[in-house]
Order: sequence, then structure tokens, then C-alpha cells
Amino acid sequence: MAEQRQPPTLGSTGEHAWLRRMPELLPVMAGVELGVGDDAAVVLAPDGRTVVCTDVLVEDHHFRRDWSDAADVGHRAAAANLADIAAMGARPTALLVGLAAPKDLPVAWAEALLAGMRDEAALVGAAVVGGDLAASDTLVIAVTALGDLEGRAAITRSHAKPGDLVAVAGRLGWAQAGLAVLRRGFRSPRVLVSAHRRPEVPYAAGPIAALAGATSMIDISDGLLADARHIAEASGVHIDLDPAALMPDEPLRDVSSALGVDPLDWVLGGGDDHALLATFPKGATLPLEFRPIGHVKKGEPGVTFGGLGTGDRPTGFDHFGS
Amino acid sequence: MAEQRQPPTLGSTGEHAWLRRMPELLPVMAGVELGVGDDAAVVLAPDGRTVVCTDVLVEDHHFRRDWSDAADVGHRAAAANLADIAAMGARPTALLVGLAAPKDLPVAWAEALLAGMRDEAALVGAAVVGGDLAASDTLVIAVTALGDLEGRAAITRSHAKPGDLVAVAGRLGWAQAGLAVLRRGFRSPRVLVSAHRRPEVPYAAGPIAALAGATSMIDISDGLLADARHIAEASGVHIDLDPAALMPDEPLRDVSSALGVDPLDWVLGGGDDHALLATFPKGATLPLEFRPIGHVKKGEPGVTFGGLGTGDRPTGFDHFGS
Repeated sequence: MAEQRQPPTLGSTGEHAWLRRMPELLPVMAGVELGVGDDAAVVLAPDGRTVVCTDVLVEDHHFRRDWSDAADVGHRAAAANLADIAAMGARPTALLVGLAAPKDLPVAWAEALLAGMRDEAALVGAAVVGGDLAASDTLVIAVTALGDLEGRAAITRSHAKPGDLVAVAGRLGWAQAGLAVLRRGFRSPRVLVSAHRRPEVPYAAGPIAALAGATSMIDISDGLLADARHIAEASGVHIDLDPAALMPDEPLRDVSSALGVDPLDWVLGGGDDHALLATFPKGATLPLEFRPIGHVKKGEPGVTFGGLGTGDRPTGFDHFGS
Repeated sequence: MAEQRQPPTLGSTGEHAWLRRMPELLPVMAGVELGVGDDAAVVLAPDGRTVVCTDVLVEDHHFRRDWSDAADVGHRAAAANLADIAAMGARPTALLVGLAAPKDLPVAWAEALLAGMRDEAALVGAAVVGGDLAASDTLVIAVTALGDLEGRAAITRSHAKPGDLVAVAGRLGWAQAGLAVLRRGFRSPRVLVSAHRRPEVPYAAGPIAALAGATSMIDISDGLLADARHIAEASGVHIDLDPAALMPDEPLRDVSSALGVDPLDWVLGGGDDHALLATFPKGATLPLEFRPIGHVKKGEPGVTFGGLGTGDRPTGFDHFGS
């Protein structure tokens, strides 16, 4: 019998050997003066400012290796950060990834993770320009994204005004529904499972919203209610969402009864689709990517749903919450 | 008897409550248009390019909570990244920190970590502009640093030329000696333990080296021999180090006999001082911060020590190595 060969792991390959592989996997792209392989990368910042954010994903909290393959995890990790850049009204330019990984992690898994990040970044013309690798009992993926404002003002959470229209670009609840399906041990409907594994983020809608005069914007990562509240609190305004505009999409309704779930909970509480929530001045022409879902009003900072309290609707995920 | 109050932990406080505390801890500084608290930060990049790098620190691999307090860990984590920016010849502008932490981590520890990072960054006029927090069994600190080249070319590892002088700015082996002291259960000599806990990085020497015409530069994080080899391999040159220029400093010699260690191993193998190793053209005026320690020669890429092989001298740390 032939000897059973184990696939190479990070432990058997070594940190430096693995880091040397990165330049092959991660070609330099336009907008990058110096990519991976030196002490630091050099990324063009034509605007004279750099938009930057960081996000940490932890195995079994943010992803499970049995529910998503490595490329999927890479796509999701990249998407979460690229969406934050888009939510400022900026164009993403670069990603960096810090990987803390068990020694027995297969090299193939780590490479597929990087490839997934690279491919998601390529959707917006951004490149993976740097990384680090360290040994850790827990698998942790730390992603940093950079972006360029192309001369526009950054769109923050804090300038929504009473009278503004509230609008959203992208899906609501799909990824959350997909996760619910996986949690019950199912692998279909495929469209929802895919939405969890590789969210379809409306990246272009970010800069478009900025050009259309958006007064505030946020990436929906905690859920619509929670992130609307973030805008309401930062802006000192009240947001009322319109129930008629927030009917769950058909795939959510189809699967919800099988799972015994109110699909509206996914719409209001699901975050991983990375839809963009923005406010626009009354009378502004809403970009095609956005649909109206509510209004900004004077009043106590907070969020209502058809004028009513959101009661026991899900109000966002807290990784440390009780 | 009064009820024993437990100090608040990340788990009892919650992610969002903790993230809301960040703006208090991390004031906006010059060079930052938008700090913590939104989807992303906006950092000025007057050069039109941004230098960026990321580093991951894992508890018990890169630091121990019983050997360093939280502020020390913050200083070290910041220093490791700021040094990478300086090694490109750039001025650091901003840091971001992704923290993956156990729920029982005291809030006070996390806040002292941030304060340590903030204070180390302030040494070079940089600010902590963003962060993320996630629950993890293993404590992992992912740091990203940004910098500005102020119109200079980035100094990479790959342009050392035969005939160049090899020079170093900063300490060699001090942090490693301090770690050796702690490993033996001692807490002194204090100067070495402090060098491990809060390295004194010659940040300003980076841009100064660039202005003086450095042909290559690297932050010594793996050890002098290992990082000299990184330059040699990237530049396709041979580097010969001068033993007479690399005599261990007095505190290293003093403690080495007590520990039964050859102090030269610390000089050649220790990385956490974040000294800057650079090459300068023959005839260039060496900046005051740098001292000559060797020469660049033609030949097989590699490193010799007084013309001899480095034999069993430590050749750098591999976090996944056997």
C-alpha cells in the first residue's frame, strides 16, 4: 500500500515559505505602486486622502469551515470590508489580510482564502497588497480595506436631516435566511445559501449615492433596524421605516414557513448582505440602485416601523452580548 | 461582607458599548479628517500614495499577559507596525486595531491596550483611527499602519548594490535579551526587560535614511541575520557583516554569563527592537542615526559574518517553523 501523504499545512510549510508564495497569488494591479513582499505596500491615493477600515472574523463566530469553503470565506471577509469603504462613498483600492491560524490549517485552505479575497476585490478593481501570518489556536482573519474618495466628501452616519428620504441598495435578509437554512442542516434553497456564502454587495451604489447628494450612509452589517438606529443616533434624528416597502423577497417567504420563522425578522435583523442604507434630501433624484424604505423625522433619536415601536424585532447582533 | 464586584469584561459590557467608548479614548489628531466611529476613517495622504502594512500578534506567541501589561502590549503592537512604515522611508500617519478577544477580557485591559497604541503612535504624530472587536477564545491583536512618503521614493528591500555600505539604526538584541530574562523568571536588569516590553524604535531614522539616499531598508523583526538575508535575496547580492562592529552592548554582555548564553546570538537573532537595517551607496554620508556594520558584495545571495558562514547562529524566527 502506498504511504498516505498528508496535504501540506501551514505548520509543515512554515511562515516564510508561505509568505513567499503570496506574490504569485496576488499580482500587482493598477493603483498599486508596490504590492506584497516588502515591509509595507504602497497604494495610490489620488484624492490626497485614504479611507480605511478594519474588520476581524473569527471561526465559529463569523464563519464555519463546514458551511463555507475557503474561497467563500475569503469573498465574505473581503466583502465586509469593501462594503464599509463603499458606504463612505469611496472606491475601494486595496485589501490587507492578517491571518492567525492553527498549524494544522492546510496550505490549500489559506491559499483559497486569499484567492477568494483577491477575486472579490477584483470586482471593484482593488488588489490584495499585504498580509501577515501567525500561529494561533483560533482561526482569526483580520482584514483591512483602503479606498479613494475621488474628490468627493466622505458620507458619514451623522448628517441625516429631518425630511430626508431613507433608501436602501442591495438585498435585505438573504444572507441571514441562508444562514438559518444551514443551521437547520439544509443546503438549499441554493440562492439563499449562496447569499450567505458570497454576498452580492452593491459596491458601486456607494460612490453613486455620494454623487446623488446622500446626506448619510452606512453599510448594513448589524441589521437594518440596528444600522438605521446608528444613523438616527449619530444624526440626532428619528427614522420611520415603511412596512409596505420592506416586504420580504420571495425566496425568504418561500423558505420561512418551512423553518417556522417570520421572514420580516431576516429583513429587519439580517446583516451579512452588506446592503447600503442611505438618506437623501427631499426632492433629490434617487439613484436607480436605491429604493425608498422610509423617512427621516424630527424627534427622539430612534427607529420606528410604520410609526410603531420595533418591539421584539431583532435589533442587531452583538458579538459579546448576553 | 460587601458583595465582591467583578471588574467589567468585554462580555459583560458588550461589543457596541465598548466600540462607543473608542472615540473618547482616541482623539482625532492633525492628519486625520475622520477618526473612529463611522464605517471607515479618512486619513490625509498628502503624497498621493499611502504606505500600508498589517501585523498579527497572538497571545503566548507574541506576548504574555503575565510578562507585559496591556499598555506595554499596545506599545509593542504599535511599534511593530510603525517600524514597518518607517522602514519604507515613510512617516507613519495612522493605526487601526482589530481585537479578537475572550469574553472574560477585562475592559480595563482592552482600554489600556488601546491607550498604549495611541501613546506609541503619538511619538510619531500618528493616530489610532479605527478598530474592530470580536469574540475569540484566543486573544489576537491585528494592527494596520498607514504612512506618507512626503514625496520620496519608497525604500524597498530589493535595490542594494555591490559596493554599498550596510548600516543599522537602533538597538540589536536588547529586546531578545529582555525576553530571555523574563523566560528565566527574572524581572531585571530592568533596562533589558523594558526593551522587550516597550522597544525604542528609531522611527525618524527611516525618512532620514531615504533622504540620505538609502538603496534598501528593512525593519529588523526576524533578527539581523534573517533580515539581512531578506535584503540579500531580494536584491540579488551578498552581504558581509563586520564582527568588530557588532560587539554586544554592555547590558547584554553583563547578563549573558548569568544566563549562560552567547550575547552575540541576541545581536544576530533578536528582532523585537525594530532596528532599521539599510544600505547606502559607497561614499554617501551616513546619517548620524546609523552606524556601519558591513558591506554589500557581488556573489551568491546570502549573508556572511566576517567572511565566514553564519553556521549555527540563529537565523530568524518562524512562527510555524519546526
